[in-house]
Amino acid sequence: MVKNVFIDIDDTLFPTSEFAELARRKAIRAMIEVGLDGDQEKLYGKLLKIIKKKGPNYDHHFDELCKELKLKHPAKYVAAAVGAYHAAKGAIQPYPEVPRTLMKLRESGYLLYIATNGTAVKQWDKLILLGVHIFFEEVFVSETMGMEKNVKFFRKALKHIGAKPENCVMVGDKPSIDLFPPKKLGMKTIRAMMGGRHTIKPGKADFEMKNFSELPKLLKKI
Amino acid sequence: MVKNVFIDIDDTLFPTSEFAELARRKAIRAMIEVGLDGDQEKLYGKLLKIIKKKGPNYDHHFDELCKELKLKHPAKYVAAAVGAYHAAKGAIQPYPEVPRTLMKLRESGYLLYIATNGTAVKQWDKLILLGVHIFFEEVFVSETMGMEKNVKFFRKALKHIGAKPENCVMVGDKPSIDLFPPKKLGMKTIRAMMGGRHTIKPGKADFEMKNFSELPKLLKKI
Repeated sequence: MVKNVFIDIDDTLFPTSEFAELARRKAIRAMIEVGLDGDQEKLYGKLLKIIKKKGPNYDHHFDELCKELKLKHPAKYVAAAVGAYHAAKGAIQPYPEVPRTLMKLRESGYLLYIATNGTAVKQWDKLILLGVHIFFEEVFVSETMGMEKNVKFFRKALKHIGAKPENCVMVGDKPSIDLFPPKKLGMKTIRAMMGGRHTIKPGKADFEMKNFSELPKLLKKI
Repeated sequence: MVKNVFIDIDDTLFPTSEFAELARRKAIRAMIEVGLDGDQEKLYGKLLKIIKKKGPNYDHHFDELCKELKLKHPAKYVAAAVGAYHAAKGAIQPYPEVPRTLMKLRESGYLLYIATNGTAVKQWDKLILLGVHIFFEEVFVSETMGMEKNVKFFRKALKHIGAKPENCVMVGDKPSIDLFPPKKLGMKTIRAMMGGRHTIKPGKADFEMKNFSELPKLLKKI
């Protein structure tokens, strides 16, 4: 019987992409507010290019943008951008059904775990801001695990909690990391389809859900 | 005639020490909220020791604290602490009379400048959060100037704006950096006495003010 539920964070517990866009747009607007001349949309486009080039976990996107724009006093613009960005990021909210669904799962006797790619402090920050960290027994982050979410990652996590794959399910949005590796190991899988972009590709999960509140019902079916 | 007014940020435009204590206390409370066992006051004391040892501009005070406490999963506590700390820091407010006094000075034809020790992005962040950056012609920060506030710092700043010392005044709270160096150069000085701790030592400024709103009147006297 499935007792252990592993859950992804980004685009599963909250609409990451949506908030990231909002935060980046607010940052650009803040730069203009403190005196930057330029078109909002064009500046946003430049920023996206830098993020694509440097990766989303790079810490100096706005410094890069200032460098590209050849700004004489970058500190002013970096301060404005980073401040606005973090203020917006601090306002992240879970998909509205998430907190009570997690509570319900706990009450039904499931053990909940986080399995996520990213840096430990940033992922913990999200869990705390979302107000859902209290529901989880353990949080497995790729940085601390020493590897991204792959078969080995899940084997290590299962060993750590002393569970067999057949008693575990993974819930996440990205097939390549949230579905295929756990499936290979013999775990069950549920695909989170809340992010609009995921409706395009076909899923290979045991189940799909369009709303987080479907989770208790689906778990009973497994 | 004095036309150029240099103003310090910390404990002159806003009660830095007060907000720093608030932010640190909120950080400690957040660590306890996410599961840390320990006495709030004792933990706060430990943190203050680390800040004293590493200096206030060190970026990993909470990592150090977790290390000292030998926490097994530091990311959780660091995330909670840093998140709460920045949320509190994001709520800084100027001394209530500051914005309208700066506005009044501008209207009276004074040119306003910031002269501050610190890192450029952090000091700019404060100016933006305080909502007063728009009042200043230029912001001189020790990091960008390549030296802390000393005689050379002020000479360089004056050269940059093309002003003579006798036409300039410095407004700040710390005699060693805000009063003595400008005085040596021939600038006028006004000491900000809003921070309670400054009432103890005698000042050597041309004038002292207990409230930022006294500034226009004092400038007329010079």
